[in-house]
Amino acid sequence: MKILVMNGPNLKLLGTREPEIYGRETLESIVETLVACAAGKGIVIETFQSDLEGELVAKLGGVGGVYDGVIFNPAAYTHTSVALRDAIAACGLPVVEVHLSNTHKRESFRHQSLTAGVCLGQIMGFGGYGYLMALEGLAQTIALNKGK
Amino acid sequence: MKILVMNGPNLKLLGTREPEIYGRETLESIVETLVACAAGKGIVIETFQSDLEGELVAKLGGVGGVYDGVIFNPAAYTHTSVALRDAIAACGLPVVEVHLSNTHKRESFRHQSLTAGVCLGQIMGFGGYGYLMALEGLAQTIALNKGK
Amino acid sequence: MKILVMNGPNLKLLGTREPEIYGRETLESIVETLVACAAGKGIVIETFQSDLEGELVAKLGGVGGVYDGVIFNPAAYTHTSVALRDAIAACGLPVVEVHLSNTHKRESFRHQSLTAGVCLGQIMGFGGYGYLMALEGLAQTIALNKGK
Amino acid sequence: MKILVMNGPNLKLLGTREPEIYGRETLESIVETLVACAAGKGIVIETFQSDLEGELVAKLGGVGGVYDGVIFNPAAYTHTSVALRDAIAACGLPVVEVHLSNTHKRESFRHQSLTAGVCLGQIMGFGGYGYLMALEGLAQTIALNKGK
Amino acid sequence: MKILVMNGPNLKLLGTREPEIYGRETLESIVETLVACAAGKGIVIETFQSDLEGELVAKLGGVGGVYDGVIFNPAAYTHTSVALRDAIAACGLPVVEVHLSNTHKRESFRHQSLTAGVCLGQIMGFGGYGYLMALEGLAQTIALNKGK
Amino acid sequence: MKILVMNGPNLKLLGTREPEIYGRETLESIVETLVACAAGKGIVIETFQSDLEGELVAKLGGVGGVYDGVIFNPAAYTHTSVALRDAIAACGLPVVEVHLSNTHKRESFRHQSLTAGVCLGQIMGFGGYGYLMALEGLAQTIALNKGK
Amino acid sequence: MKILVMNGPNLKLLGTREPEIYGRETLESIVETLVACAAGKGIVIETFQSDLEGELVAKLGGVGGVYDGVIFNPAAYTHTSVALRDAIAACGLPVVEVHLSNTHKRESFRHQSLTAGVCLGQIMGFGGYGYLMALEGLAQTIALNKGK
Amino acid sequence: MKILVMNGPNLKLLGTREPEIYGRETLESIVETLVACAAGKGIVIETFQSDLEGELVAKLGGVGGVYDGVIFNPAAYTHTSVALRDAIAACGLPVVEVHLSNTHKRESFRHQSLTAGVCLGQIMGFGGYGYLMALEGLAQTIALNKGK
Amino acid sequence: MKILVMNGPNLKLLGTREPEIYGRETLESIVETLVACAAGKGIVIETFQSDLEGELVAKLGGVGGVYDGVIFNPAAYTHTSVALRDAIAACGLPVVEVHLSNTHKRESFRHQSLTAGVCLGQIMGFGGYGYLMALEGLAQTIALNKGK
Amino acid sequence: MKILVMNGPNLKLLGTREPEIYGRETLESIVETLVACAAGKGIVIETFQSDLEGELVAKLGGVGGVYDGVIFNPAAYTHTSVALRDAIAACGLPVVEVHLSNTHKRESFRHQSLTAGVCLGQIMGFGGYGYLMALEGLAQTIALNKGK
Amino acid sequence: MKILVMNGPNLKLLGTREPEIYGRETLESIVETLVACAAGKGIVIETFQSDLEGELVAKLGGVGGVYDGVIFNPAAYTHTSVALRDAIAACGLPVVEVHLSNTHKRESFRHQSLTAGVCLGQIMGFGGYGYLMALEGLAQTIALNKGK
Amino acid sequence: MKILVMNGPNLKLLGTREPEIYGRETLESIVETLVACAAGKGIVIETFQSDLEGELVAKLGGVGGVYDGVIFNPAAYTHTSVALRDAIAACGLPVVEVHLSNTHKRESFRHQSLTAGVCLGQIMGFGGYGYLMALEGLAQTIALNKGK
Repeated sequence: MKILVMNGPNLKLLGTREPEIYGRETLESIVETLVACAAGKGIVIETFQSDLEGELVAKLGGVGGVYDGVIFNPAAYTHTSVALRDAIAACGLPVVEVHLSNTHKRESFRHQSLTAGVCLGQIMGFGGYGYLMALEGLAQTIALNKGK
Repeated sequence: MKILVMNGPNLKLLGTREPEIYGRETLESIVETLVACAAGKGIVIETFQSDLEGELVAKLGGVGGVYDGVIFNPAAYTHTSVALRDAIAACGLPVVEVHLSNTHKRESFRHQSLTAGVCLGQIMGFGGYGYLMALEGLAQTIALNKGK
Repeated sequence: MKILVMNGPNLKLLGTREPEIYGRETLESIVETLVACAAGKGIVIETFQSDLEGELVAKLGGVGGVYDGVIFNPAAYTHTSVALRDAIAACGLPVVEVHLSNTHKRESFRHQSLTAGVCLGQIMGFGGYGYLMALEGLAQTIALNKGK
Repeated sequence: MKILVMNGPNLKLLGTREPEIYGRETLESIVETLVACAAGKGIVIETFQSDLEGELVAKLGGVGGVYDGVIFNPAAYTHTSVALRDAIAACGLPVVEVHLSNTHKRESFRHQSLTAGVCLGQIMGFGGYGYLMALEGLAQTIALNKGK
Repeated sequence: MKILVMNGPNLKLLGTREPEIYGRETLESIVETLVACAAGKGIVIETFQSDLEGELVAKLGGVGGVYDGVIFNPAAYTHTSVALRDAIAACGLPVVEVHLSNTHKRESFRHQSLTAGVCLGQIMGFGGYGYLMALEGLAQTIALNKGK
Repeated sequence: MKILVMNGPNLKLLGTREPEIYGRETLESIVETLVACAAGKGIVIETFQSDLEGELVAKLGGVGGVYDGVIFNPAAYTHTSVALRDAIAACGLPVVEVHLSNTHKRESFRHQSLTAGVCLGQIMGFGGYGYLMALEGLAQTIALNKGK
Repeated sequence: MKILVMNGPNLKLLGTREPEIYGRETLESIVETLVACAAGKGIVIETFQSDLEGELVAKLGGVGGVYDGVIFNPAAYTHTSVALRDAIAACGLPVVEVHLSNTHKRESFRHQSLTAGVCLGQIMGFGGYGYLMALEGLAQTIALNKGK
Repeated sequence: MKILVMNGPNLKLLGTREPEIYGRETLESIVETLVACAAGKGIVIETFQSDLEGELVAKLGGVGGVYDGVIFNPAAYTHTSVALRDAIAACGLPVVEVHLSNTHKRESFRHQSLTAGVCLGQIMGFGGYGYLMALEGLAQTIALNKGK
Repeated sequence: MKILVMNGPNLKLLGTREPEIYGRETLESIVETLVACAAGKGIVIETFQSDLEGELVAKLGGVGGVYDGVIFNPAAYTHTSVALRDAIAACGLPVVEVHLSNTHKRESFRHQSLTAGVCLGQIMGFGGYGYLMALEGLAQTIALNKGK
Repeated sequence: MKILVMNGPNLKLLGTREPEIYGRETLESIVETLVACAAGKGIVIETFQSDLEGELVAKLGGVGGVYDGVIFNPAAYTHTSVALRDAIAACGLPVVEVHLSNTHKRESFRHQSLTAGVCLGQIMGFGGYGYLMALEGLAQTIALNKGK
Repeated sequence: MKILVMNGPNLKLLGTREPEIYGRETLESIVETLVACAAGKGIVIETFQSDLEGELVAKLGGVGGVYDGVIFNPAAYTHTSVALRDAIAACGLPVVEVHLSNTHKRESFRHQSLTAGVCLGQIMGFGGYGYLMALEGLAQTIALNKGK
Repeated sequence: MKILVMNGPNLKLLGTREPEIYGRETLESIVETLVACAAGKGIVIETFQSDLEGELVAKLGGVGGVYDGVIFNPAAYTHTSVALRDAIAACGLPVVEVHLSNTHKRESFRHQSLTAGVCLGQIMGFGGYGYLMALEGLAQTIALNKGK
């Protein structure tokens, strides 16, 4: 099983950017833990980070037939990008939306998600640990779908 | 560690009610799997289901000092209940909001949550498996908080 | 044929409560007339009244296989209850929504119904006589469905 | 007792137009059944159909003193016509609004009615049978008013 | 003179729940002070607390002829309950709405009250002392009405 | 000078229709007074009334070169007709919008006018006398324009 | 008969201020014409202009028993002043709202009037001539009321 | 192949009405060019123009089995007519919506179309030439559908 | 203890202005009762009334160090004045907002208060007696604050 | 004549992505047909596709003096991009907006276009054939402009 | 060159009022620095402060021909005053809007400005230093305009 | 002191793009003047322009510890980019938002800024000169902060 982990704008800054909201873990350490945990389940993880909406769109355009599923933190684009919504809907794979913080505790424009409606599911508020939870949920769903 | 699992209105009907949205698993089987899984981690699960908003409010009024955390699927009250929002904020425990379906795929009045903003986090779209993911995320958070 | 007649909050007060809006008939006299009229058509009527949203939800959770249809006046919960909407959608029976007054003549928050969209149909403005009309429409629909 | 049955735009097409929404009955067969049923109660039915908002307005302008009440399906004009609202309010007779389909199941612009607030009552979702129910409710009301 | 003091959801928790918003006084101590103060004016106080919207509705359904007025803190239901609005309008007694905190300082969904428009008046922001002020205002109004 | 006086839907009923809003004067008597008053100023009045939006549109399509100005009471179409707005803008004559009642005292959907923004001016609240005031204002404007 | 003519903020500047919107007539010349015209009908005109909302409120507080009616151009306060709305409602005299320009041709915040709903009527779009039309309409109404 | 070209309110005035928005071509010349162009492709064109919403509704009620498709410029009714939306949906033919001007450059109430959502497609901003483009697109679609 | 009692626009008219809404008591008699009652508690009352928003702002600019608290009925400015909101927030004293009528029973633009969110609390619906209740609540709060 | 054909995000996927909405034609085949058709008219076509909003902006920044017009399918950016609106307005060429699907049949956030208001015109709902129609309309407009 | 510096409501309190928002500088010291700085550039500064909207309106009514430009901090009236918008538009001078705090960091009703749209420009967030920046920008613009 | 000057989409076109809105100065000449002016104050300026939202996000991700502050004209992204809002909030430097035109004079979607609320301040309406004003305000703030 091969899973793509995608991260959107500003997430390279994790650990230094507003740690009272996003915590002190870096993206690298989150990914390392995730790769190790996935390896234990026989799952291969690849990662992609971009600050550019269009690069994220393009990446999703090429995932069909290459991966079994996608874990995606679209960050700020969650609330503004119809292009990413279209790309998720078009990619043909199950996509899990992850957020580090609980966006419902923040400004009201972060309470709506343009992308969640075309994803398999959504997880938020568990910091970096949410990626592991997403992996588990996604792996479970892929296994069930294969079993059908 | 002791966790309360609360389920809101109409969830007794799981497995028979609109299975194309909520799946064919019953609430009993979800809870059984959850209790077994929790036992393996040394966690005790108690459960409470009610169709009455006020009974759920009252239950949350008594959780302080009894449990370490709450997994809560408020179902339809998610979108209409300020009373449950107040009860969650008042209870002093970490609460994880769980939904079986991805509410962003459904009517627009299901896209907003009055309760999520006072919860630790939110998980949706993974069917009954979401309760296990919530358990994991909640246990991890409680352990981290105790470690502080 | 067996029909459940459900009445929501404040309807026990009928006949004394604001008679210029709701008329001077009591709920008992409306039900008596209805039972008599139904008996003449070979239909058995059972009734249930509760001021509690959750009790109405729970009652609807148990109607499948017991009744052939439901006549429901959700009163104030018409405008605020997603839980009752879910319960109606889940119950698997044809449900007719009845209102004594014409809600479109009143405050604007009474112009929208959260429950009507999952009912078979809606009747309003005929006072207690509306329950008899609902019975007729429901009986006709059940007969047609059975004929299919 | 003399009742006018008015039908608005596109209703001539009944039976062929989108039968999954409006059913397969024609307007002629609905009216025939209604006339027969009314005759049995000693009620005379006259009918008027127009696709033109203004002709419906004009017709309502002449009903005073000629009929005892009106059964009216304004169809699409329900949601857009202040002129029909004014005409109903001005005509001085009890008017019952009827819809074949349950408009709450359809596009959101069909959830509000500009005309219902000046009618006696509203019935929707029972197909052609709703006209018979309207007749019964209207006859009952006229009889009661005469009794005063 | 006999006054009913009603308290809505979560108010049992007063004194422990978020004391920075609601203060450290318990509901018991507020009531005790109120009863003592009322006794000095020859007024009998009875109290009723429930977390259930429908129980509050039902209680209001039975106050006519038993009490001279009601002091009511509907808490969270203030902002969501049409059923309580209807119950207050139907009860036939003067009702004073009381809030411990100044709801205008909090989330915007707490700035509107569905119930205040059918009450005699509203008092907010004075903590437990607001109940005494409500008692005074209510007693004054009842006395004036009797004098008419 | 030749002026067209146009009246929209339901205005034939003036004098009998809801006299507490529209007064007891008939359209005929208003027009008679207006014609007499205009004659005294050497102005010829022609009149046109229709309940049909499209007939009013068509009439406006032919006024160019025939009249010097238009006095128009669009009644209910004021609030819903873009077609009349377009017809007024296209006709090339000064048009004065008149309403018998003060629409700002009535339902909120009567507080906006789709047609006023392309008229010369608007007069409301003076009953039938408003037509005479409109005539005076219109004649004054036409005279001024000719003087340019 | 004695009429007060009130003018609100910025109207002292008439004739120089944005003449393409408000014309080149000064307030003085408008008033002179009005006084002369009124004198011919045996009506005494007094005038009051202020840029201060509160002075206009205070002036209206003293008109009862002194004047027979008021012609009022509230200018910008039309769209923002609840205080003037209250003052007009409280003054007990018929008040006619006048605007020089057609406010429906301008920014959308000028399309609603807070004051018109408590006035006798409204006239707009006729420049300074609108004051003469208002005088006529007001005099006619006062005469009719006296005749009652 | 037989195509109906329908034109809505005020379009008779083309060429004289506000030429800076709609151009100087008349409806006749547009139609002539269209008929000639269609003849070259072996397509017969018939035309219908009405200022009356209801006549347009009625015309659409009779197109089934007579024409292969419809080119329709509903003009102002585009933004206000649910009746035309229903008529288009009911007629069973492909309908192309055409506008002479680019409605997105104009008042915001012209940015939404009630009719476009039930049409095959929409073309705007090309003046009279847009009808030829519509013919081409419609003919292509009809040919493709027949080929199925 | 020294308390300032401020009254906003139109309140000079109390007793004569719309007595069915505001009662028949004059502002003078309310103040007299209040002064007498305060004297009995050793509290000095000063009063200030103005119809001018800016004079009320200026008065609040000078209350620091002179008074212990303010009782303020901003009347119509409650719903429109950000300047008074700023002045209350800046003055550094506890301010109690009082309304004679229950504003929730009136037009919807009176349901929101721009000033209440920066006040200590709000009292409405008790007529002139509300000032005495405000005095009590304010005195109690000041005493508590001093005791800290 | 030289025309640039620009395609926005996700359009590379045409033919495989959700074919029930976008059809089975690939972008390559659409472009081939277009180039061939243009060649027959002596028009040179160049194409540009990007998933990146900013690259589309930059491309438009360089079209002045190089091309005679632009055919642009902004896809998802239609509904969210002010930057593309500015780029179109700034480029100085006629731009035709094209959509494969009829966006009015889809989610409501696809019913508004931020870009159409600065384009020459808009064509939607004709699949790949819409590009040929756009070419024709654009060529016609360019020819007309040159003829001026 | 002569510049008027106008300050609106509550600004007299600067230095003492909520210093965490507005800083500790007094209006006097800001003005002193400004006058000194302006003197060095040969510019004369006059100042005007009022808490009264109408006095600010009146002052602007007299600036034409007396000053070369205006620096204006309308404070709270920024968000509510159409009268000041009209006065700025009418005064014929370039006006620069200044705010001490960054209003976008505060309540949402401070995010819109009714006055900025008729000003030359806007500066906010630089405390008292913003007046010096405004002076520079205004002087530069006046010099440029004179150079034309 | 080292300042980064960032410019967003379409700003490369300055001087040629819609000069009636943006003036005839090029970005190069603005920057040259700014660099010269800064040099005179011992400040080093670096510049960055991109049409890509994500490149602007990435650039802000690297400014910490490299520059002392940022002058940023986000152009169209001001109104649509949550990603840039997040990047500004995360970068830890004071950022001044600059706009060449006064956005309040333009379309209403340009009246709100998603980015201003996390900036130090905002300057608009002074053309290229606004960058010099921003430099002064930013330098002053940085100096003050260092002095702390």
